[in-house]
Amino acid sequence: MQETMKAVKLFLDWAPREGYQPGPREVKGKRAQEGNKFWRNPQVKIVQEPLPEIGPTEALIKVKACSICGSDVLMADSDEAGYTRYGYLMSNGVTIGHEFSGEIVAMGEGIEELQRRTGQEIFRIGTPVTAQCVVNCGLCEKCKEGKFDECWLTEERGFSLDGTMAEYAVADLRHIYSLGELREKYPGEELFLAGALIEPLAGVYKALIEVAGGLKPGDSAVVIGGGAIGLSGIALLKTIGASTVILCEFSSQRREIGMALGADYAFDPREENFTEVVLRLTGGVGAKVYFEAAGVATTVYPDIDYLFKAGEAGSKLVLMGHGEEYATVRTETLIGKYNVIVGSHGHSGVWRNVIKMVAAGLIDPRKMITRKITLDEVPQWLTTLRTNKEEGKVMIVF
Amino acid sequence: MQETMKAVKLFLDWAPREGYQPGPREVKGKRAQEGNKFWRNPQVKIVQEPLPEIGPTEALIKVKACSICGSDVLMADSDEAGYTRYGYLMSNGVTIGHEFSGEIVAMGEGIEELQRRTGQEIFRIGTPVTAQCVVNCGLCEKCKEGKFDECWLTEERGFSLDGTMAEYAVADLRHIYSLGELREKYPGEELFLAGALIEPLAGVYKALIEVAGGLKPGDSAVVIGGGAIGLSGIALLKTIGASTVILCEFSSQRREIGMALGADYAFDPREENFTEVVLRLTGGVGAKVYFEAAGVATTVYPDIDYLFKAGEAGSKLVLMGHGEEYATVRTETLIGKYNVIVGSHGHSGVWRNVIKMVAAGLIDPRKMITRKITLDEVPQWLTTLRTNKEEGKVMIVF
Amino acid sequence: MQETMKAVKLFLDWAPREGYQPGPREVKGKRAQEGNKFWRNPQVKIVQEPLPEIGPTEALIKVKACSICGSDVLMADSDEAGYTRYGYLMSNGVTIGHEFSGEIVAMGEGIEELQRRTGQEIFRIGTPVTAQCVVNCGLCEKCKEGKFDECWLTEERGFSLDGTMAEYAVADLRHIYSLGELREKYPGEELFLAGALIEPLAGVYKALIEVAGGLKPGDSAVVIGGGAIGLSGIALLKTIGASTVILCEFSSQRREIGMALGADYAFDPREENFTEVVLRLTGGVGAKVYFEAAGVATTVYPDIDYLFKAGEAGSKLVLMGHGEEYATVRTETLIGKYNVIVGSHGHSGVWRNVIKMVAAGLIDPRKMITRKITLDEVPQWLTTLRTNKEEGKVMIVF
Amino acid sequence: MQETMKAVKLFLDWAPREGYQPGPREVKGKRAQEGNKFWRNPQVKIVQEPLPEIGPTEALIKVKACSICGSDVLMADSDEAGYTRYGYLMSNGVTIGHEFSGEIVAMGEGIEELQRRTGQEIFRIGTPVTAQCVVNCGLCEKCKEGKFDECWLTEERGFSLDGTMAEYAVADLRHIYSLGELREKYPGEELFLAGALIEPLAGVYKALIEVAGGLKPGDSAVVIGGGAIGLSGIALLKTIGASTVILCEFSSQRREIGMALGADYAFDPREENFTEVVLRLTGGVGAKVYFEAAGVATTVYPDIDYLFKAGEAGSKLVLMGHGEEYATVRTETLIGKYNVIVGSHGHSGVWRNVIKMVAAGLIDPRKMITRKITLDEVPQWLTTLRTNKEEGKVMIVF
Repeated sequence: MQETMKAVKLFLDWAPREGYQPGPREVKGKRAQEGNKFWRNPQVKIVQEPLPEIGPTEALIKVKACSICGSDVLMADSDEAGYTRYGYLMSNGVTIGHEFSGEIVAMGEGIEELQRRTGQEIFRIGTPVTAQCVVNCGLCEKCKEGKFDECWLTEERGFSLDGTMAEYAVADLRHIYSLGELREKYPGEELFLAGALIEPLAGVYKALIEVAGGLKPGDSAVVIGGGAIGLSGIALLKTIGASTVILCEFSSQRREIGMALGADYAFDPREENFTEVVLRLTGGVGAKVYFEAAGVATTVYPDIDYLFKAGEAGSKLVLMGHGEEYATVRTETLIGKYNVIVGSHGHSGVWRNVIKMVAAGLIDPRKMITRKITLDEVPQWLTTLRTNKEEGKVMIVF
Repeated sequence: MQETMKAVKLFLDWAPREGYQPGPREVKGKRAQEGNKFWRNPQVKIVQEPLPEIGPTEALIKVKACSICGSDVLMADSDEAGYTRYGYLMSNGVTIGHEFSGEIVAMGEGIEELQRRTGQEIFRIGTPVTAQCVVNCGLCEKCKEGKFDECWLTEERGFSLDGTMAEYAVADLRHIYSLGELREKYPGEELFLAGALIEPLAGVYKALIEVAGGLKPGDSAVVIGGGAIGLSGIALLKTIGASTVILCEFSSQRREIGMALGADYAFDPREENFTEVVLRLTGGVGAKVYFEAAGVATTVYPDIDYLFKAGEAGSKLVLMGHGEEYATVRTETLIGKYNVIVGSHGHSGVWRNVIKMVAAGLIDPRKMITRKITLDEVPQWLTTLRTNKEEGKVMIVF
Repeated sequence: MQETMKAVKLFLDWAPREGYQPGPREVKGKRAQEGNKFWRNPQVKIVQEPLPEIGPTEALIKVKACSICGSDVLMADSDEAGYTRYGYLMSNGVTIGHEFSGEIVAMGEGIEELQRRTGQEIFRIGTPVTAQCVVNCGLCEKCKEGKFDECWLTEERGFSLDGTMAEYAVADLRHIYSLGELREKYPGEELFLAGALIEPLAGVYKALIEVAGGLKPGDSAVVIGGGAIGLSGIALLKTIGASTVILCEFSSQRREIGMALGADYAFDPREENFTEVVLRLTGGVGAKVYFEAAGVATTVYPDIDYLFKAGEAGSKLVLMGHGEEYATVRTETLIGKYNVIVGSHGHSGVWRNVIKMVAAGLIDPRKMITRKITLDEVPQWLTTLRTNKEEGKVMIVF
Repeated sequence: MQETMKAVKLFLDWAPREGYQPGPREVKGKRAQEGNKFWRNPQVKIVQEPLPEIGPTEALIKVKACSICGSDVLMADSDEAGYTRYGYLMSNGVTIGHEFSGEIVAMGEGIEELQRRTGQEIFRIGTPVTAQCVVNCGLCEKCKEGKFDECWLTEERGFSLDGTMAEYAVADLRHIYSLGELREKYPGEELFLAGALIEPLAGVYKALIEVAGGLKPGDSAVVIGGGAIGLSGIALLKTIGASTVILCEFSSQRREIGMALGADYAFDPREENFTEVVLRLTGGVGAKVYFEAAGVATTVYPDIDYLFKAGEAGSKLVLMGHGEEYATVRTETLIGKYNVIVGSHGHSGVWRNVIKMVAAGLIDPRKMITRKITLDEVPQWLTTLRTNKEEGKVMIVF
């Protein structure tokens, strides 16, 4: 094995905005919980560095595919004052990237020991894998309850720990998932393309299934925004029995992908009226699930309220998109129609089922890929994607 | 039996506000879905009228107790322009009142026939009963699904049909519930005092248990507003295993009732800071259920958002109070903490369990009663209660 | 319109078995709650009789398609002692048949009145419809709770009330569902073929979704028995995101239909070992849902227990098939693996969603039809189907 | 601090029964998954041994109270062939005991580091604590999903790892819970008496709330067996709003404790008929929850079936008691009444809520204690309790 590797790293300058003091979880010059309050002047660099070492329960993974997430673009972008545009956990000097797949090339002895004792050999050299980016501490009161996404001291691969836009990556057994089941339907390198997109599907699965409780088969659903989250939402909603799934999205290319993933109708809200489309396609009763995946809650809420009121009772608004921060909620509508508003983030605990869905061919996330690039092209694409809102997934292949 | 009876009726003048046209469910001079858009000049009169006749599946009930609801006060009150202050279904010339109990004095033959065929004799002459005020049609698509509170053509006893501030009232078997189980713990006339208050408890049970899914035993809860809904909420939340229930309420008398019904702490938000109280009494983790029963969603939401953000994940805001109509919801908080906002109204389908709880002594709703009056005193109390926000329940006894 | 019509009626002799006394719900010579305890000598006759009259909230429906259900076969069959083989509610002299579709040809004025007042015109002359066979009383304590399938005095169309193996049938608005949404995907007479099969789908939807809580997308499922219930189960389970659905069934024709409806694998348990197949196809973790639709609980339970124990925790056994009555349940397995056993019958409250699924093309129940017959052929097919376990649905077309 | 400590240990002889081969999780002479298949000649000894050492995320706990569990009695008892009577995970030479409380006397630096970084100081020297006995691996596929009780390689404190019938015990931060909240209502040493009994409450909370989904407030419940599990069940069911809780138990002392913990009625099934009592006290509708905590599923199931059939639909049987292994389940009853049978074991993930309930005084588990003993008396009491079925909890105090 080679001794050094190429990695895409993000470097930042520590410059707390006025009024922001580091808390117990901030480390000066190293780590900030809310990136855009502390970090200025983001700089993306491709570096050559030694291969990472692995601990007893960790695996070294040769990365085969890694897609660019909207968060990657925001981290590397800056506002007028020079601060990064990403508002969550970020550390300085880490390798970015977290939607990935690869092959195990080395494993700590703790993994082997566990497998020997349980008689279950899931991981071995060559096993195709992916890993979650939520790296929970495993020790805090929330981790004790199995609520890993609520960990008090979570780290995030590709944000506060070295990520996967590199030739090799490391992950602990606690966060690795086998992609072996994908072999049958995704032969050869195709497996890695699908496997790198388990991560956004897992986030959507958590939001729609675990947090929002899914839907009743036969219900209708509306997806607002055709980025990776919205597209994954379409595929999932259609797979669980939504009778009609409607996509609201500006980009025609993304609308096409939405249709390919199962949407029954996709429209541009600048050309067709949102509430009219939804009422027409649902026979006047409205959708039961509205999935906000565009980060435009402020803009879209008046229409949601209109549909809540015009439609049948018991509809839900599920929020996942970051962006606009406020919605003016008419509480009488909720009271009159038993509507639910709920939000979600994270993805722990759902990976095996998502992998089974993809392995079974119920969802083929490769349909989201519109472009394949090399690791060297990443910096340029991080810039391009600031304004290009037509691409589906841009996938780095190795 | 007497041939005529005394009843408290509300008379209204048909005067649609500008921009409001009657829809299919409005009847000029008779019935409006949104009272304050169509009705002016509310006048309460005590009338003498013939006893009502009963249909084959109806019972004639001699009313024994009936409490005044906030809705009764609003219907009889008017704004600066002379319109009633009540914004929901209202008809002209009906007897008001809906939180009641009484004894069956006559029954249609259909009830007897059904009981004979099932071998279940629940109702007979003399059976103490109450009835729900939601009088669903039983025929529409929502009634077919058993979702009676979502009926397309619901009538409401005491709002669009003759109610129970009268010596006698009529209800269909579909809406009557026996209070026989209360006999053991509420002897004599006491049964009727407790029985008249099943209705607000049923609404709260629906909101907190059926719609919001209750809480995990050991969770904490906050109740905003100590009227009948908030007080019923305290009693219910404490009965289902809330470790701490906190009441936020201006009136000291209502706070005292709240404590008597099981609250662990009750405070005046003008004297103590809402968020500080909640964080202090929950060990810093916040409540899992916030029950808005005061109709002040606009005012209180910023504090709810603060507590959602400061506290542990998975908290819910349950809306039941009518009044202020908007809340400015920070969607990032919901996304970060999996919070849920949900509303509820109505009370169908839960009465038997509520009656069992009261019969078992788990909840004694008589603690809410602060005053007993006669039917003749109703008009005066409807006026008094416009400004008096210290009373618990004012109960008409017959 | 013609004045008389043809109908398939079942005539029975009242002969209570030793030890069985009529209860309050039995009527000598007319009605029995448990057919095989009271009725002997079942005789199927095609009669000519006057068209039925309709009440104010009823519709007269011209029947267009009606399929034969296993219950129809059992009712018309008899055991060695001459008693009917059907053990549930049965009345003498009624028209059988309940899985049907047709067109409204007349409506009571109550329906028109309701539609006028709600402004919702769902039903008119010519509307294609189906109706549930559970004819609940609407008045008992369970009907008050919206639990219509638990009605204390339920009647059943085609069992204790005249059914739909006739040129015309009557149903109350409370039990009728529009099939109008099917027009787009099922043109012309095809609509009625699909529409007649909503009923078995509704029963399965209730069992798997409402009672058993569905499954997590990506879970695996096993269906035992490829009759209409099992086949509907396959279609539904696949539609809600099961990664793998396995059918266990003797008949090769039924296995083929199962595969057409979405099964991933179908096998004959006489040729392949049940537990081996399931473990192999689920990667050793077993299924999460076992749907017993063959009425062989006694026979199959040891294998279910084996799979519960060998597989991952949290699996469910959902019972719908009538037949063998006992399962010897190893309780330690349930304790160790959190398994759930649950049963279901009935179908109220779910029809609109089932219709939406069929209308959207998610499920095409016509795939179950293996034969079309005329009304005159019914008596012969009721006999044939006693032993023929290869047919899918035998559909009467008019 | 002292250098050595006293501990109660269990020594066993490795003697696999015919037909049982050690699997991957068995270790010859050390560890067996099913104790009674491998271990003979159990011998309880009080030993003096060095204080345990702690790892970086572990705490050393000075034990203050530890109660004897039925499992302890079974492990130390043997059948006719000399095999231990306990059929689950057991290792040789470990200190037994797992229902305990104590004070932290030393902590690994990893705990301090975590607390410093999160700013949450929950544990310090002197903090009163308890710990769960399920010591999950944290690494396997089920631990990744937060389902710790389903861990593929779980160890159990007091069964396969050194337990808490010793002056000191060790536990990892992942399994320790603070009892600090109990200080207010349980002053001084009383805290430790209540704290040692969190464990059985946690198991019951998991079974009744997490696995079985609780009950609707106002429902009735029946508890079969008045040992620690049954008594905890009574307390919990009453705390969550059961209108009537009925205890079925032979011992009069245990029935008295049951009444003190909230049961509405307690009876001896040798003196009163089980089904008659239940139908009488539930107004003929039966209970909604039957909690089997006596290990007599085989014996009691016919009565459960009778009550399922006679009562209202939707009742559940929740199995927790080990003992008799089979129930002959009439599947037609489940189908007709939507009954659910489900089992549960373990206790992970629920401890904080249980502690809050005890801290709030909703449940006072000290009511179960009927005797306090010293560590030296343990061997004698392990023998006595083989036949004495009158005691509540026997508590070792230090």
